[in-house]
Amino acid sequence: MRATVLHKPGDIRFEERADPKILTPTDAVIRLSATCVCGSDLWPYRGVQAVTEPTPMGHEYCGIVEEVGSAVTSVKPGQFVIGSFFASDNTCPHCKAGYQTSCQHREQVGGAQAPRLRVPLADGTLVATPEVPPADLVPSLLAASDVFGTGWFAADAANVKPGMTVAVVGDGAVGLLAVLSAKQMGAERIIAMSRHTSRQKLALEYGATDIVTERGDEGVARIKDLTRGVGADAVLECVGTQESMLQAIGATRPGGFVSYVGVPHGVTLEGQNLFFSHVHLHGGPAPVRRFLPKLIELVWSRKVDPGKVFDLTLPLEQVAEGYRAMDERRAIKALLRP
Amino acid sequence: MRATVLHKPGDIRFEERADPKILTPTDAVIRLSATCVCGSDLWPYRGVQAVTEPTPMGHEYCGIVEEVGSAVTSVKPGQFVIGSFFASDNTCPHCKAGYQTSCQHREQVGGAQAPRLRVPLADGTLVATPEVPPADLVPSLLAASDVFGTGWFAADAANVKPGMTVAVVGDGAVGLLAVLSAKQMGAERIIAMSRHTSRQKLALEYGATDIVTERGDEGVARIKDLTRGVGADAVLECVGTQESMLQAIGATRPGGFVSYVGVPHGVTLEGQNLFFSHVHLHGGPAPVRRFLPKLIELVWSRKVDPGKVFDLTLPLEQVAEGYRAMDERRAIKALLRP
Repeated sequence: MRATVLHKPGDIRFEERADPKILTPTDAVIRLSATCVCGSDLWPYRGVQAVTEPTPMGHEYCGIVEEVGSAVTSVKPGQFVIGSFFASDNTCPHCKAGYQTSCQHREQVGGAQAPRLRVPLADGTLVATPEVPPADLVPSLLAASDVFGTGWFAADAANVKPGMTVAVVGDGAVGLLAVLSAKQMGAERIIAMSRHTSRQKLALEYGATDIVTERGDEGVARIKDLTRGVGADAVLECVGTQESMLQAIGATRPGGFVSYVGVPHGVTLEGQNLFFSHVHLHGGPAPVRRFLPKLIELVWSRKVDPGKVFDLTLPLEQVAEGYRAMDERRAIKALLRP
Repeated sequence: MRATVLHKPGDIRFEERADPKILTPTDAVIRLSATCVCGSDLWPYRGVQAVTEPTPMGHEYCGIVEEVGSAVTSVKPGQFVIGSFFASDNTCPHCKAGYQTSCQHREQVGGAQAPRLRVPLADGTLVATPEVPPADLVPSLLAASDVFGTGWFAADAANVKPGMTVAVVGDGAVGLLAVLSAKQMGAERIIAMSRHTSRQKLALEYGATDIVTERGDEGVARIKDLTRGVGADAVLECVGTQESMLQAIGATRPGGFVSYVGVPHGVTLEGQNLFFSHVHLHGGPAPVRRFLPKLIELVWSRKVDPGKVFDLTLPLEQVAEGYRAMDERRAIKALLRP
């Protein structure tokens, strides 16, 4: 098959790779209905994260099971399934605690920007939809694989509850879906921090009540203004830079909650600043598996439409253009059709 | 009156100072029944924190109200009261949220190692006991002013619940009372990290089920061993150094809770390490005022005896010896009798 490989920063190729096959009895092989480019794919694409060898790209996926290993019992060929970027057994103590991305047997899923994909630990990792979905639901189900699950975790980790004032730092797809998630969890006021008209528009559609365009200290001051000097109850940090973390912590009221769901790049937190901020801090790689049944239900019942974050759809073979469009912020997120 | 003043590192003097008096209508002046030396007093005493001018010392206090300002309505002369190291109005949004140490009108209380003390914002700050306590309860009531309240916050901030496995980093008075607090909150297993026999003994008396003497990576490995490789559900960091923070984070299971209640000195947290640890982090200056009614009730009903952390009692005028004994770790905590 032909699939996506990053050779060096900026060099995305769609080239011949071996077809995936069952390697261990707990594997499944799926045929992808759709895949996409993740904001985190841009770190190595931009050279911020080292690329030491040609790397098969992609970790967001949904599709039809083609084949399962002899030990797989919970999914079967023909089913439409969704999984997350870390395969997990869903039985170890960390999985049982709801932290499947810290599974004791976790395996990173890679190479999903391809027509077919091997998924390890299929029983623990894959969740089947009630039936094969209509085509118009596929983008939203694909979003559940990572970006919606990560936005949902941002709201969950920041303890969003009905009536709260919530701020979201970052207007990428995760930030936008964090807005949607906070709305679903009952937030009364949702302040989206965004400078881009098209993203502001989607944020408002997803439930944002206020838009703040300022960043850094000015952004913090603006949130304080909007909350009578108190700060937000919860701030969802969906970027992963030093500036965005400090902005999130500074905008939160004492006793409030900060979540962070993007892999931090160049972030260090000074102990006394954090101490006197009095915030709760929680985050990490989103345990999407915990939320998948709920997210599938929300999409299946058409209560939410997270697939709207895909504002660019390309044939898989044009994946390189998907990377370019996201890198240049011409697209929020690129969906790829194999 | 004569009171305690730190002139420069190591130079504690008991010398003449002006008697405190009512300065604003919301003040109270109390006659101290007992006061003490705090672990945090050792930072400037040791020169780790700068001493720029002669500084009246002490912020832990309980005693009899002598005089109140014209606006004070909730306490009156003759009552026995306890307050915390930050005076707070107990009515602002941060106070109402239970974070009185971030009160919008907070004032630091200083100069409590003295016979008499002015307490600002008396209505918000002071809590009276049901009646003037018998002498044997005074040490435990004094402990509620800071060290017990801080240990309690350590357990509260780490979400300690019945059945949990809890580890406590630090065997100072706060760490020991964090053990007691975790026990009160129903922790099933409490691992105290301590190398000192006398402190281990008190930890066991307060409810510790295991003692770990190793520190750093070895301490983390030992906690992992004791929890089948999983890590503790909650780790209470009661020291405030880089080593103790990393030890606490490393010993916590993914999804578990780390609290930190000692002012961090030289602590920086690297973003990716924290991210992949998957822990919840919360702490800051303990909002003791939130817990005072509960702590007074526990002491008054003799369910707990936090006053046992005072293993040295001195007349107030010998305060310098109290500092020396704690600095040299000959005493866990020194109580001073005016």
